[in-house]
Amino acid sequence: MTEDRLSRRDVLGAAGVIAAGAAFIGLGGALPRAEANVAKMEKWPWPYKKLDPAKTAEIAYNEWYRVFCGAAVVGSVFSQLREKVGEPYKSFPIDAFVFLEGGMAGWGTICGSNAGANIVSNMIIGPRIAGPECENGAVIGSNIMKWYSETSLPVYMPKDPRVKTEIAKTTSDSPLCHVSVGKWMKASGYPIGSPERRDRCARVAASVAYKLVEDLNAWKDGKYAEKAAWGPVKNFGITAQQNCADCHGANIPAPPTGK
Amino acid sequence: MTEDRLSRRDVLGAAGVIAAGAAFIGLGGALPRAEANVAKMEKWPWPYKKLDPAKTAEIAYNEWYRVFCGAAVVGSVFSQLREKVGEPYKSFPIDAFVFLEGGMAGWGTICGSNAGANIVSNMIIGPRIAGPECENGAVIGSNIMKWYSETSLPVYMPKDPRVKTEIAKTTSDSPLCHVSVGKWMKASGYPIGSPERRDRCARVAASVAYKLVEDLNAWKDGKYAEKAAWGPVKNFGITAQQNCADCHGANIPAPPTGK
Repeated sequence: MTEDRLSRRDVLGAAGVIAAGAAFIGLGGALPRAEANVAKMEKWPWPYKKLDPAKTAEIAYNEWYRVFCGAAVVGSVFSQLREKVGEPYKSFPIDAFVFLEGGMAGWGTICGSNAGANIVSNMIIGPRIAGPECENGAVIGSNIMKWYSETSLPVYMPKDPRVKTEIAKTTSDSPLCHVSVGKWMKASGYPIGSPERRDRCARVAASVAYKLVEDLNAWKDGKYAEKAAWGPVKNFGITAQQNCADCHGANIPAPPTGK
Repeated sequence: MTEDRLSRRDVLGAAGVIAAGAAFIGLGGALPRAEANVAKMEKWPWPYKKLDPAKTAEIAYNEWYRVFCGAAVVGSVFSQLREKVGEPYKSFPIDAFVFLEGGMAGWGTICGSNAGANIVSNMIIGPRIAGPECENGAVIGSNIMKWYSETSLPVYMPKDPRVKTEIAKTTSDSPLCHVSVGKWMKASGYPIGSPERRDRCARVAASVAYKLVEDLNAWKDGKYAEKAAWGPVKNFGITAQQNCADCHGANIPAPPTGK
């Protein structure tokens, strides 16, 4: 495989649209579990009432300053559903997900806003092993990572932002925290501990929460028709992000195809 | 910063041991939430009874074939605590975490076994914003990512493995799925869809579950004395993994220090 062949645009083009569900990441093989061991919250979908994207984004923005990216995105949706629906949202420990901050306890891996969006979509709609009616849970989460990677963020402007100066927008080309934050820091010149970087990440969480609720509302209306746009296992023989050349340069490894 | 200065060993040496808690990843600034909005499961720590690491690992190994890495690690601990303790474990939707497979819906980011371990430790012990008695939740999760990155995995051998031939062991030098899986595939020659690769990942989940319960048992006994060993924000000015040169080579970017 060459760098040209695996440039981001080409990869996304080549991957195309694959079927969701069991073939989604090419692992398959799920086995059933005894009914007696299934908790009552492990029946999907959970009840969902449509939310206002802008209101959700405002909650995420403000909650970022209390619980940071991942728990802010989870809480922006679930705190409203605790009031509008009740259980099982009242029994979901939102605040425990603070650890998603900084790409999981500061390790810079998956951006907590992306992880939080995946948690929300998969909790509400369900895991793919629960049946075909649940496959949109993983699809919405996966496609938000793609949207996050390709969008100049943050797109959401809070009504009353804590930082009044303009915040730079950057495209991460990756769902990872430290790539996203690093590219923004390089473009803006602001360090990690600055109010500007903090407000940028709060606005990113708000932007993701906005997009997430748009998708959940479309799903609730039966209008979410997307399929998972990124299928690396099926197309490239390994789990992977879509920015191979960012790290590998011209030397993208070719996975073994058989033995 | 030079490659020499930031080689993995040097980085880990330089990072040293930093205080956990609010300074853990240098973000700080959490604000209190109204008591009325706190769910009953958002009080920590959750009741915990010590588990058998080997039994837990066996459960994780077998559950991998039903729910894959992340949910297998979560379920290996929580399914036992549902029986030994009851709530809040009975109300936690283990199976929804299938999406952690393949580094989050196949994107190859954080290995689901690492994500699952962080979920378990932070659910049981609590998030760092809940107070100093909860800081070990994030510390155990973070240090398992370090252990995962430095250990030749899988270390756990199932009692009755589905694949009878020897499974190669590899050191990922990273907490990410596609780096871990890719290095194993390169060393073993087996492709992603092979029974060998699948059994390798099931054994990795089992290995992480074993380590996780060792740590939780030590914490329960008041003997978990580790501090977070990886503090990139404080030491290097950005969230990051510990393998900078793996992706950046000799051109490790220097984050901005002020503006």
